[in-house]
Amino acid sequence: MNTKKLSELQTYMNAHNIQVAYLSNPTTIAYLSGFESEPHERILGLFISATEDPFLFTPALETEPAKNSSWSFDVVGYLDSENPFEKIQEELLTRYGAIESFGLEKSSLSLDRFEIMAALFPHASFSANLTPIIETMQLRKTESEIQTLLEAGNWADVAFDIGFSAIKAGVSEQEIVAEIEYQLKKQGVSHMSFDTLVLAGINAANPHGTPGSNQVQPNELVLFDLGVIWKGYCSDATRTVAFHEPTALQQKIYDIVLQAQLAAQKAVKPGVTAAYLDNVAREVITSAGYGDYFTHRLGHGLGMSVHEYPSLVAGNDLIIEEGMCFSLEPGIYIPGEVGVRIEDCVYVTSDGCKPFTKTSKKLQIIQ
Amino acid sequence: MNTKKLSELQTYMNAHNIQVAYLSNPTTIAYLSGFESEPHERILGLFISATEDPFLFTPALETEPAKNSSWSFDVVGYLDSENPFEKIQEELLTRYGAIESFGLEKSSLSLDRFEIMAALFPHASFSANLTPIIETMQLRKTESEIQTLLEAGNWADVAFDIGFSAIKAGVSEQEIVAEIEYQLKKQGVSHMSFDTLVLAGINAANPHGTPGSNQVQPNELVLFDLGVIWKGYCSDATRTVAFHEPTALQQKIYDIVLQAQLAAQKAVKPGVTAAYLDNVAREVITSAGYGDYFTHRLGHGLGMSVHEYPSLVAGNDLIIEEGMCFSLEPGIYIPGEVGVRIEDCVYVTSDGCKPFTKTSKKLQIIQ
Repeated sequence: MNTKKLSELQTYMNAHNIQVAYLSNPTTIAYLSGFESEPHERILGLFISATEDPFLFTPALETEPAKNSSWSFDVVGYLDSENPFEKIQEELLTRYGAIESFGLEKSSLSLDRFEIMAALFPHASFSANLTPIIETMQLRKTESEIQTLLEAGNWADVAFDIGFSAIKAGVSEQEIVAEIEYQLKKQGVSHMSFDTLVLAGINAANPHGTPGSNQVQPNELVLFDLGVIWKGYCSDATRTVAFHEPTALQQKIYDIVLQAQLAAQKAVKPGVTAAYLDNVAREVITSAGYGDYFTHRLGHGLGMSVHEYPSLVAGNDLIIEEGMCFSLEPGIYIPGEVGVRIEDCVYVTSDGCKPFTKTSKKLQIIQ
Repeated sequence: MNTKKLSELQTYMNAHNIQVAYLSNPTTIAYLSGFESEPHERILGLFISATEDPFLFTPALETEPAKNSSWSFDVVGYLDSENPFEKIQEELLTRYGAIESFGLEKSSLSLDRFEIMAALFPHASFSANLTPIIETMQLRKTESEIQTLLEAGNWADVAFDIGFSAIKAGVSEQEIVAEIEYQLKKQGVSHMSFDTLVLAGINAANPHGTPGSNQVQPNELVLFDLGVIWKGYCSDATRTVAFHEPTALQQKIYDIVLQAQLAAQKAVKPGVTAAYLDNVAREVITSAGYGDYFTHRLGHGLGMSVHEYPSLVAGNDLIIEEGMCFSLEPGIYIPGEVGVRIEDCVYVTSDGCKPFTKTSKKLQIIQ
């Protein structure tokens, strides 16, 4: 349970006249309550009063695990045969009396559930959106969060080792993915933070390609984009390696992407903007004549979610601060020819940044 | 692309005065357009006019894969540096002129995105919720969908075989999960439909327990709940097996759950209600004195999603029809003692039902 952040949220609520916060994002709930759960279509909510004790609302199946988590306030469960929102209404009225103003996580509450709440509390205001304040709360990581992110990053390095060792002529992308996830699971990493990408040859030229039966061939590049969830925190990193000697074009594109990645990493420090960092990397690629082939933003925040705030993208004037954590992942994708992406996630220090992953970014040639 | 269902939706829209449908659920989009994609925090939308050609709206990264899918209408992309909703507004105005009424998928549109749309189209009505009609559309599967679900079920049977073979003294739950997923991936199954559950001993008594380092011990039950995604369709099945001889209590609880599961499966036919089926299984367990330990509904629909409509739960008067597909999964969970669940997903035939999975439900004793 994150008592400090709970109390920060209550301070914010008091200052903004929000009587009750209804938090619906499972990641936010895990962050504040210490109880991790993916409710699928069932209802999981964290209800925080500005002035009184909060409570966790879960499916009946989850009340025992919730009570056994670090959450020390009440847990209220509902059966599949009960109407969860009527039960929520009853709990709220009993505990907090008439409610005039709710704060919602508008980015993770579906419209139908909002409409049910609005109908049950016809006199309450629902205008306050808590998503931005929660995103802001999570922007600057604590030392202990950074420590966990470093551990998650270390598992990504382990994954690269396994993946690079699995490369041989004729092995399929999917077989390499299977090998990476198998070895990690056996070592105790239960979840990847997203679908592991292993893309060979021209398949790597699709920045959202999917690993399949495509086999690795000599003189091709192989792109690995992967990460794990470790103690609730994510890693995310990309390396592109060569199987046998790279062609001149592959080497050239690799060198440009690497320069862009290193330039961005060198430019990170408190005080610059997110847009500036995107531009630093983009300039390197554009000057080299490949700007049109760098089709996505430079990066995204990461923490308990693999994609969170901030977005490193043109137009985002957010000022970078110490403790922020995000990816730097330029890429060049020339359809039918070659695809290269190089990515480290970093945390911002007082005068620069440090990466969570340590695998060499020099082009590795697998024989 | 599902031309028949697209046209059914347009007929519904015309009858209900809905000018444009904004579909936001990636599964619905895959179902109707044939384009499968998980956009994460980016915007993916399918816009269907009641009278004119529809278009797909995707991140720029996805426009090529979308054009290469079976979707044959326009694909509009947006860059990370562009405002997606302004681009959507522009496209809608250009293509369809002033819009008076939108239909939304209210169960899968977040409140913040709805508020952006409402602000961009201040004179339009957004009252129509398309979630129920789309759920209804997907309720009765076609022969070809059932064929694919049978294939997905067959992979679950393969997974049980792998998992049962991996049981030995001292192996951890997590190692068995790793083995199942590794062998399936090598055989070409790229995704499980949910986190594979392997739970041993009293860990199985938690219906939402998590596999970990807990090791399988002789005279324990081991619960497997698993499924795959195969050609876009899901399987989901549960078997509980004994490692060495079961105790008298384990055997007793197993027999009650099996009776409940078989009673429900025998009771399925067109014309009965969802609630009736839940009750058939529940009655068996309640009569045996364990009603309080069957803490969840009997089952859920499955198709392109692993949890979809209908819900087999007390109070749901939905009439079962031929072609519906759902799980029948009674369980008894006595905390600290024993947990058993047995589950098959079935499809409804003209006079009964057939299961998608064939693994024996007789208590298997692994030596």
